Amino acid sequence: MGDAELPKKYKAAVYDKPGEISTKIVELDMPEPGPGEVLINLTHSGVCHSDMGVMMNSWAALPHPTQSGQVGGHEGVGKIVKMGPGTENSAVKVGDRVGVKWISAICWSCPACLEGHDGICFNQKVSGYYTPGTFQQYVLGPANYVTPIPDSLDSAAAAPMLCAGVTTYAALRKSGAQSGQFVAILGAGGGLGHIAVQLASRGMALRVIGVDADEKKDLVMESGAEEFVGLGVGDTVARVKELTGVGRACGIGAYGGKCGDMLRFGGRCVCVGIPEGDPIPIKGALPQFMVARALSIIGVAVGDRKEAIETLDFAARGIVKTHYRTEKMDKLTDVFQEMFEGKLKGRVVLDLQ
Amino acid sequence: MGDAELPKKYKAAVYDKPGEISTKIVELDMPEPGPGEVLINLTHSGVCHSDMGVMMNSWAALPHPTQSGQVGGHEGVGKIVKMGPGTENSAVKVGDRVGVKWISAICWSCPACLEGHDGICFNQKVSGYYTPGTFQQYVLGPANYVTPIPDSLDSAAAAPMLCAGVTTYAALRKSGAQSGQFVAILGAGGGLGHIAVQLASRGMALRVIGVDADEKKDLVMESGAEEFVGLGVGDTVARVKELTGVGRACGIGAYGGKCGDMLRFGGRCVCVGIPEGDPIPIKGALPQFMVARALSIIGVAVGDRKEAIETLDFAARGIVKTHYRTEKMDKLTDVFQEMFEGKLKGRVVLDLQ
Amino acid sequence: MGDAELPKKYKAAVYDKPGEISTKIVELDMPEPGPGEVLINLTHSGVCHSDMGVMMNSWAALPHPTQSGQVGGHEGVGKIVKMGPGTENSAVKVGDRVGVKWISAICWSCPACLEGHDGICFNQKVSGYYTPGTFQQYVLGPANYVTPIPDSLDSAAAAPMLCAGVTTYAALRKSGAQSGQFVAILGAGGGLGHIAVQLASRGMALRVIGVDADEKKDLVMESGAEEFVGLGVGDTVARVKELTGVGRACGIGAYGGKCGDMLRFGGRCVCVGIPEGDPIPIKGALPQFMVARALSIIGVAVGDRKEAIETLDFAARGIVKTHYRTEKMDKLTDVFQEMFEGKLKGRVVLDLQ
Amino acid sequence: MGDAELPKKYKAAVYDKPGEISTKIVELDMPEPGPGEVLINLTHSGVCHSDMGVMMNSWAALPHPTQSGQVGGHEGVGKIVKMGPGTENSAVKVGDRVGVKWISAICWSCPACLEGHDGICFNQKVSGYYTPGTFQQYVLGPANYVTPIPDSLDSAAAAPMLCAGVTTYAALRKSGAQSGQFVAILGAGGGLGHIAVQLASRGMALRVIGVDADEKKDLVMESGAEEFVGLGVGDTVARVKELTGVGRACGIGAYGGKCGDMLRFGGRCVCVGIPEGDPIPIKGALPQFMVARALSIIGVAVGDRKEAIETLDFAARGIVKTHYRTEKMDKLTDVFQEMFEGKLKGRVVLDLQ
Repeated sequence: MGDAELPKKYKAAVYDKPGEISTKIVELDMPEPGPGEVLINLTHSGVCHSDMGVMMNSWAALPHPTQSGQVGGHEGVGKIVKMGPGTENSAVKVGDRVGVKWISAICWSCPACLEGHDGICFNQKVSGYYTPGTFQQYVLGPANYVTPIPDSLDSAAAAPMLCAGVTTYAALRKSGAQSGQFVAILGAGGGLGHIAVQLASRGMALRVIGVDADEKKDLVMESGAEEFVGLGVGDTVARVKELTGVGRACGIGAYGGKCGDMLRFGGRCVCVGIPEGDPIPIKGALPQFMVARALSIIGVAVGDRKEAIETLDFAARGIVKTHYRTEKMDKLTDVFQEMFEGKLKGRVVLDLQ
Repeated sequence: MGDAELPKKYKAAVYDKPGEISTKIVELDMPEPGPGEVLINLTHSGVCHSDMGVMMNSWAALPHPTQSGQVGGHEGVGKIVKMGPGTENSAVKVGDRVGVKWISAICWSCPACLEGHDGICFNQKVSGYYTPGTFQQYVLGPANYVTPIPDSLDSAAAAPMLCAGVTTYAALRKSGAQSGQFVAILGAGGGLGHIAVQLASRGMALRVIGVDADEKKDLVMESGAEEFVGLGVGDTVARVKELTGVGRACGIGAYGGKCGDMLRFGGRCVCVGIPEGDPIPIKGALPQFMVARALSIIGVAVGDRKEAIETLDFAARGIVKTHYRTEKMDKLTDVFQEMFEGKLKGRVVLDLQ
Repeated sequence: MGDAELPKKYKAAVYDKPGEISTKIVELDMPEPGPGEVLINLTHSGVCHSDMGVMMNSWAALPHPTQSGQVGGHEGVGKIVKMGPGTENSAVKVGDRVGVKWISAICWSCPACLEGHDGICFNQKVSGYYTPGTFQQYVLGPANYVTPIPDSLDSAAAAPMLCAGVTTYAALRKSGAQSGQFVAILGAGGGLGHIAVQLASRGMALRVIGVDADEKKDLVMESGAEEFVGLGVGDTVARVKELTGVGRACGIGAYGGKCGDMLRFGGRCVCVGIPEGDPIPIKGALPQFMVARALSIIGVAVGDRKEAIETLDFAARGIVKTHYRTEKMDKLTDVFQEMFEGKLKGRVVLDLQ
Repeated sequence: MGDAELPKKYKAAVYDKPGEISTKIVELDMPEPGPGEVLINLTHSGVCHSDMGVMMNSWAALPHPTQSGQVGGHEGVGKIVKMGPGTENSAVKVGDRVGVKWISAICWSCPACLEGHDGICFNQKVSGYYTPGTFQQYVLGPANYVTPIPDSLDSAAAAPMLCAGVTTYAALRKSGAQSGQFVAILGAGGGLGHIAVQLASRGMALRVIGVDADEKKDLVMESGAEEFVGLGVGDTVARVKELTGVGRACGIGAYGGKCGDMLRFGGRCVCVGIPEGDPIPIKGALPQFMVARALSIIGVAVGDRKEAIETLDFAARGIVKTHYRTEKMDKLTDVFQEMFEGKLKGRVVLDLQ
């Protein structure tokens, strides 16, 4: 697609009244890719719970209230249609399918970036909050930071991988668990959880103990868990420990929760994601227990660039799949309403065309 | 020394009335080394604060009260005088100088032992509590687990290395800090702290920020610290962070304490030693902070066999030295009294001959 | 089984005329377990190509010729029937099923043992060469070094795991390949190779490229390989590289062979096993290529104690299986003859009862 | 310095007749920084042996002959005087001192870059060969890839650190040697060697055995080696092994050389730098020895971005220093002549002002 063919205007869904569930479709001027940037014609964007946090201003960690007119979204997939100046030698070119994720741009130079831990770049840009996000037909991104999408992976299927997939994969890798070891996944039947179970079991050969409400059992087992521990009956921690025996076991949970208590010798509790409310301490983070069992606890926010690429590779190989339905862009408010009411099953991917 | 030359009886200092500061010298029958054991003629034993915990029954972590007549001590050095059956192919022989440390025997087969993490062997024996300790002239130990003492290291100087040295070295290694990185040592002027400073700075090329009460400054700086942060003035955490800049920094503290707050990106807080009182949570162990800065927290009890050997190697090379004075065995009660009153400077090593 | 019930004599297959294919059944006196030892009533022993090397004196690496009367074998499984002195606190007890492997005893104290790398213990004992092996009904072993057999694993199936399984597993672990990465296995359809393919693909979630003669394709693919590269057609190295693309790829081969040439960026060539003939250099071990692609090469002899336990765990979970047939002890000469003539399909396990 | 103040022309030393020792001073037009680039006013550039390889076309690894008029040099230090478009958020700004090293630009997106191993970026630009180098008063560089120079480090002293320093530091880090372990440095008294000795001993607390010609002993010992093994007397390999005892020892050598033979259990031979001549195999890279001693061999070309920053940090702390003299730009031909004749002591840094 040559420059001449690009429309002057395009459609975007913006937050209308941040603090409320309210989006509207607007027309925006086509942006010009700056130095090092590419212009992407998005076809799909996942809708994530974190978008709602941004829209509702419910996220204490963000430094300022979301502005009216902000384009949200951070799971976008589309084709590059134009390259900015200085991108001649970059790895992507016009026509390539690429993705935009939660961290949409980094500084490349802070201590985190220098170690390849760009998911916590000190100067990170968050898509859909600091920068216009992916609920729109065109978006800009750094040529060196957008995520290449493997040919064999459908764009709609790729979208949720860019946040839910990458985050859980990062947590699993950073747990240090090696193939053949147990990992207890708390909230295993949730939006992130069931992806974690698939990646852990089929992608990484970990032995998954899925912990969640009893009604999630089928989803958890279908996703590849070896064992399910329902929250409804008896002592969850004791049951997990009975399954792992004396073996090393890591634990992964959105807020840590009881994760620390479940660990066996040498285990690591991974706290994944950024809690919305007040800080609560991690259970099991008591020196006595950590010392005696050589436990460790780490925090994982979202995935790094390399982890994003690896996650998409797992998805392209068919190892991980999400349940999603597609909706048109103008249904975004309804989707958020459904999410708010807790009625959403699986994920929604917006069809932006 | 042949078997015929061994005396029938020998002297030991035992806890007389556990719960009180009270030891007495008794005569014990010479023991016979069992299968896989060696008999050691001890010449020196360090006196450690943990011994007082055992004597006073002040340590909640131990499963039963200390019995009257228990021989304490876990920093013993001496010569092997007799080998038990089945030790023909072991690495030590009659005449070798060896040491006995806090963990005096292990099971070799639990998950911790299998990973070389024998300092937390699930079936560990603690010298001076589970087994007769090192406040005596002869002690038994496993041929494969006693610690060889390098030729160039004085026995009295070696003794405190077996507990204080090994524990701090293990904490430093397990911090994951690499040469050229900062490590903040809390209690840097203490009995363990000043050893940690020496090992970290001279032995491991870490940049040490010593944190302690203002009057400890000289000892901390002489031990090799690059910077000293006194507890008396201003915001300790802020001053540590100012020194480390944005660089990676690990922290080591007996109870974690403010260690977690001091960490920079990618830092690790090491909780070292086993607290005596009720469990208290680790400051900074809040998912929000850990996630955003990729922090981790680990517990380290005491060192492993390999770490003991490496610590003694550092000591033999003159890299780490303790301040100690020697006392005769019959002064043990006085030494404990001095320790109890907080008047003890440096460590005391008993001359057992 | 009490002591009184043990027979005075038992049957063993010994090498009759080392240097030739010749074994005979003899009666031996029941041995008494020494300090730290257990007596095992063996029911099964695998027959390995390395046994033939010992019998035929064809192995330059061994320090002295094999003696007439030597009991060979190093893949033995049976029940403990008697404990020697000093084993009261060991992890095994009378009635436990345990295995004896190539390295039958270690010193626990050399640098290799201290790092948990006991498979290359400086003072290792080799079963069936330094010590009486497993082609007999009773054998002695160190209580702390025999390998526990999981309850759900059949003894005959466990036997080949103790050498072929452990060795390939060790090579795969030490390749550093992580789940989702490629590993090229040279000789993928061989006795060790097809086990490596199973462990790599099903047990460790590696993407296996099996390289072998064309007629081995079915076995290699059934074992879980993602791709097969036959030796009969075209440029093997080029075809492997085409499959891996630019991705990191490790390689595993008995002698290194062309393994080095196949590596992609960051790859590691694992040389596994101990070649019989003269030393030959590793292809690809040229500084120019290693420097430019950050390659590494490592050697792996056999597995360590921990790796043996993990291998048996994989086998007990049904992840790895060998093709074997059982034969009575008096057929051992015939089995070796078949092996010598290259007619052996799969492995043979001796039924020792 | 504002744009208006920049001269239109500036001086550069170019290769006049590549293949011969021949440089001349020319006037070049001031370049304009492109997207993502900065313009640096260089004050100093080291002269490295690799520059001579480029000038003389003696380096088989380079894909095309050097052109007449090529500006050489890859150890440049100066101040940023102008920022190109799209550099608003970069970590550097006008007035910052920065360095340009061997790898002057990378693609950020190849497998090597994704792992932070940018020193072997698949699409790397080499300063002074692919791009105009640092033998000139102004040079362009990527805002995100130029190396910040610490305030306390003199520009002339910083220059040689950017190649000799970084390369040796990378080799030491990638050796995996940990503080307290031995490292044998082959060519320890050479241009790179004596820097390696300083970084290893003072910066990383490694125990250095320096190996070189007898007349280099003083330099090697002054640089911090614990032991010196001269090449003139006896069996070098045997003497190194005698010093290390059974302990783990790594080895670092420009071409591997006898490095492999010197290794103890678990040791790693690091081949550093890119040989000029025909590929020669690494001694000791024989599967038999590697298997039995768990040896590994790796290749290291030059350092990565993070290693460059760390090397300069060591230099700023005074831990590593080079012997250098400064010369004016127009003496470059003489300097190369001296280098060619092997008469150069220490390094030469050009004063470009």
